[in-house]
Amino acid sequence: MSEKNVILEIDNSIATVTLNRPDNANTINLNLVKDLYEAFKTCHHDESIRAVIFTANGAMFSAGGDLDSFVEESANLGPFITDMTTYFHLAVTLMNRMEKPIIVAINGTAAGGGLSLALSGDIIISADTAKFSAAYTAAGLSPDGSMTYIMPRLIGLKRTKELMITNRRLTANEAFDMGLIDQVVKPEDLHKTVMEMALNLSKGATKAYGAVKTLLSDTFSSSLESHLEQEARNLNIRAQGHDGKEGVKAFVEKRKPNFKGY
Amino acid sequence: MSEKNVILEIDNSIATVTLNRPDNANTINLNLVKDLYEAFKTCHHDESIRAVIFTANGAMFSAGGDLDSFVEESANLGPFITDMTTYFHLAVTLMNRMEKPIIVAINGTAAGGGLSLALSGDIIISADTAKFSAAYTAAGLSPDGSMTYIMPRLIGLKRTKELMITNRRLTANEAFDMGLIDQVVKPEDLHKTVMEMALNLSKGATKAYGAVKTLLSDTFSSSLESHLEQEARNLNIRAQGHDGKEGVKAFVEKRKPNFKGY
Amino acid sequence: MSEKNVILEIDNSIATVTLNRPDNANTINLNLVKDLYEAFKTCHHDESIRAVIFTANGAMFSAGGDLDSFVEESANLGPFITDMTTYFHLAVTLMNRMEKPIIVAINGTAAGGGLSLALSGDIIISADTAKFSAAYTAAGLSPDGSMTYIMPRLIGLKRTKELMITNRRLTANEAFDMGLIDQVVKPEDLHKTVMEMALNLSKGATKAYGAVKTLLSDTFSSSLESHLEQEARNLNIRAQGHDGKEGVKAFVEKRKPNFKGY
Repeated sequence: MSEKNVILEIDNSIATVTLNRPDNANTINLNLVKDLYEAFKTCHHDESIRAVIFTANGAMFSAGGDLDSFVEESANLGPFITDMTTYFHLAVTLMNRMEKPIIVAINGTAAGGGLSLALSGDIIISADTAKFSAAYTAAGLSPDGSMTYIMPRLIGLKRTKELMITNRRLTANEAFDMGLIDQVVKPEDLHKTVMEMALNLSKGATKAYGAVKTLLSDTFSSSLESHLEQEARNLNIRAQGHDGKEGVKAFVEKRKPNFKGY
Repeated sequence: MSEKNVILEIDNSIATVTLNRPDNANTINLNLVKDLYEAFKTCHHDESIRAVIFTANGAMFSAGGDLDSFVEESANLGPFITDMTTYFHLAVTLMNRMEKPIIVAINGTAAGGGLSLALSGDIIISADTAKFSAAYTAAGLSPDGSMTYIMPRLIGLKRTKELMITNRRLTANEAFDMGLIDQVVKPEDLHKTVMEMALNLSKGATKAYGAVKTLLSDTFSSSLESHLEQEARNLNIRAQGHDGKEGVKAFVEKRKPNFKGY
Repeated sequence: MSEKNVILEIDNSIATVTLNRPDNANTINLNLVKDLYEAFKTCHHDESIRAVIFTANGAMFSAGGDLDSFVEESANLGPFITDMTTYFHLAVTLMNRMEKPIIVAINGTAAGGGLSLALSGDIIISADTAKFSAAYTAAGLSPDGSMTYIMPRLIGLKRTKELMITNRRLTANEAFDMGLIDQVVKPEDLHKTVMEMALNLSKGATKAYGAVKTLLSDTFSSSLESHLEQEARNLNIRAQGHDGKEGVKAFVEKRKPNFKGY
């Protein structure tokens, strides 16, 4: 199992996806993004999975793109980068579109494409030892993995532009203060905090979380009226599903709901 | 008057819209959203009204949707929810599109659809005792009332997603710190603070406020160049209206302007 | 040189654009916006320029539109405002679209159109003595110069609306705290701080900064998938350019890159 670039483990209704190139700072190469896409595809389609944890083995979360492979593929750079971004972006798209919550457990530094991956999750919990850096322009490159899509939606255009132009390195607490991540914990508390959150969410109204993700995913490019129409449509579907009926009934009866995820 | 779900009072150029189901935590039912729509329709069309206060009677602002009515209407749930969201969303659309400022005076806790309503105003002033919660997914439902439209535009996508998935309850001060509301005051100072603001705004350049609302309403889905065109078009109209001419003249003459609202 | 409304100086790869109506609070009139457009057009087309500094002479950065000229042109107000906004907006568009970084050195108060101009740069560094104010609606006018486009993308819709309706004056530190500007320094340190930043950026991967600007410029109105396609397309071009190849090679060889700006 330790030879795999990405490890997928499923335990009851919780899937854990782990980047597993710890001796290479979990840098992103073609095999890793292909495996990551496969792992998230399983998470997406397996109805028994109701919460996903995304983390990494080793000291870092991910140092970003494997630039050694850029040099190795220099004779064939265009098609190589197209393959890289194709699978990378299929994985990122699934993280965004999957109708179940993804908790990111950031065990260590996330830079470049590694930061793009981290920010593509829904709830981001970081060890206080992690550092964050956009990093791309320092290597003469422009961002991928949705960083120019997601970061301005989290922290605004000004701070995003400054981070991408200066490549200033943020501490986990600085990232938290500007709203880039949700929670900062001691490294020794990371696993426990994330597991508690995952357990809690895996018993929640999965499809309602999914509707929140879907509605928020396209919100900035929507007009008010068409977005209200989407909210009405989603509420109607959710209220008529099992978990909507159960949630309303439990609220009225002043008891805890028993959600089933549909 | 106490039997009405929504009270509309007009005093000079200030309208006050008050949710009035204090014994039911001002929960939102079909009659309330119909009455709310009518009240805001009057505020929108009555040219003498130049500022609107939106508040609630009782200990809470609004606990959100009246879930008892969801259970009562369970045999007819689809059409019932469509009616609810139709009038709710007509009211919210008017709050956004009305070309005059709406000051929300949050007297107490706002949850679910009650929070959606509160956030649809332009200037939001809250008693420090109020609590805020997204609440929908805790009942297996997805948000309505524009919450997935407005909240990410106020506080970014990350904090929005976290609040909608965890349903974490915010204090008024926490809501202020993350930019969800404009001001926090002692409960005994709420009325005075809001009235001062309303008086001030009711003597302002109403159509200029309206242009600001209109331009900001569609900004995130606009391209730079077409938005600049809209700014130029609006400035031209405003500069040629009474209040534009008067405002410029007063500025040049170093005196207070005498705005008339057109 | 002191008679010009706008001074353009080019020193090696750094251009400095200076508003030069210090005796008139650098207010914006038709000649100034025409000259500003010409200055930024040169910055845009001159390939030797790799970083731009934008600042002003005198005690203020700019007090906004020259309202005296509004009064003088009152017989011809419509066409006059169309001319003003046309050149103003051509200048603002170039600031946004130019594929090289613009550092704004805010030497003093920026209000109305002066604030619009300041916010159109990429990295904004301010003297701690500067004050900021939207100002438009106080004169019965609606914002131009992209203020309703850029400000909500920097600090969110709520704070933007409040600033535009109340015209509350912010200190530089308040502006920094809400994410409107990037850095606040003592007035005597402004020139040195900005020059260091400009020197640093002028040796950077100019086209990578340009790709960041382009990708961020249209991000809020994009859908995730089409934005990912743009990121992949830009990365491919950048990785195959001189600076991309050099940046990757330098990273792998653990040395400082020697960027040339293409």
